[in-house]
Amino acid sequence: VYRLKLTLQYDGTDFSGWQRQKKDRSVQAVLESALRRLYGKPIPVVGAGRTDSGVHAKGQVAHTTVPPKHTLPILHKALNAILPEDLLVQSIRKVPNSFHARYSAKEKWYRYTLWNDPSRPIFDRKFLHTIPTPLDLRKMQQAARKLQGKHDFWAFHSTGREVASTIRNLKRLSVQKEDCKLIIDAKADGFLYHMVRRLTGVLIEVGRGKVPPSAVDNYLRKNKKKVLVPPTAPAKGLCLMGVKY
Amino acid sequence: VYRLKLTLQYDGTDFSGWQRQKKDRSVQAVLESALRRLYGKPIPVVGAGRTDSGVHAKGQVAHTTVPPKHTLPILHKALNAILPEDLLVQSIRKVPNSFHARYSAKEKWYRYTLWNDPSRPIFDRKFLHTIPTPLDLRKMQQAARKLQGKHDFWAFHSTGREVASTIRNLKRLSVQKEDCKLIIDAKADGFLYHMVRRLTGVLIEVGRGKVPPSAVDNYLRKNKKKVLVPPTAPAKGLCLMGVKY
Repeated sequence: VYRLKLTLQYDGTDFSGWQRQKKDRSVQAVLESALRRLYGKPIPVVGAGRTDSGVHAKGQVAHTTVPPKHTLPILHKALNAILPEDLLVQSIRKVPNSFHARYSAKEKWYRYTLWNDPSRPIFDRKFLHTIPTPLDLRKMQQAARKLQGKHDFWAFHSTGREVASTIRNLKRLSVQKEDCKLIIDAKADGFLYHMVRRLTGVLIEVGRGKVPPSAVDNYLRKNKKKVLVPPTAPAKGLCLMGVKY
Repeated sequence: VYRLKLTLQYDGTDFSGWQRQKKDRSVQAVLESALRRLYGKPIPVVGAGRTDSGVHAKGQVAHTTVPPKHTLPILHKALNAILPEDLLVQSIRKVPNSFHARYSAKEKWYRYTLWNDPSRPIFDRKFLHTIPTPLDLRKMQQAARKLQGKHDFWAFHSTGREVASTIRNLKRLSVQKEDCKLIIDAKADGFLYHMVRRLTGVLIEVGRGKVPPSAVDNYLRKNKKKVLVPPTAPAKGLCLMGVKY
């Protein structure tokens, strides 16, 4: 047997998220059932990040361990021939047995894309969250700089998953304008559950002028009431861009 | 009453095409039902081109005649609030009563987009036709140059719609590469039914090396058996980019 690193792309619209679940169509389950067809037995897959229902990926990473039945090019081609049109294996590489998609990850990069225009996006509407009223880019950038760095992001995590520590090193949080789009890039050693969507929620309120950039420090103090944090931004604007090892 | 020129965008995936039909969901019918809601009576709409089922538009044009009930900005906003997420009115302008979306049109621009790579496109898969084996760009460009100009495009039209003449002036037919995509742009004073998709079908066969560029002249002679023309390319790769008046 040998260990493989798979880089994956998916349109999250019709997936219940990464994680295998009893009934719903998850990325992990669809991938595992394709592998089962190719190997004739269950082949479990471990993902770098458990993206939520509706979240997309351009660079999700997973590992798996397979018997030496197929060469890598043949496995790659066969997998993509079986997988549905909203899931693609971009690359397959052999890695040492010590490689673990989640635990070996050094940095993850998520991108949240807003459509900030009174018109509606037609062709990529499933990958954007629309805010018709103009957002203040400069203020959002000021707030993003304040949130960058090593902090306790307790106020930005959603409960529902156990976590040892809520301290994370947010190496980068940037906001850029590209035509009608506002692109929020977040890079960190790891993210808490819903963290990017909650950071985006705060940046949106800052952009609307409802929260001053100077006030975002307040969210970085533990035991603040969570209700103070603005709403979580919807899943469809979020994409896992890549994982560094 | 006054006449309006509407510029429209739509994702053709879930439409039965432009033309109103008894049962199916057409762009024309969806637009007319939105106008009926705003004016309380039937408001017919005439389109520049009757795009087929599955064909997209970034610059379809239509005209209509409405009573002076709403100002243009209010009508624009109200229409887009009613229309579904796959149809957008990009702009509305007042035009002289002599303006006719179809008969006043001087030039139409269609774009056909191919994904030419063994991988599959995930995020814009509904707007591309995939050909995994490499196509010869230079040969396709040679063939396109030969098809450009004023010709009898009889062999490139599908029957099913009556037409007085099959002569058209194909002012531009170009093929460009952009990463994994091949972009075919066609501009003409008018197009025959299925003409762009049939032109694309021929260019694909040329790119595959099955038809030499020198042979495309044969298709420009009338009374050739239609069966000789390669298959019509699928609708989802086609987009009406704009109409000039």
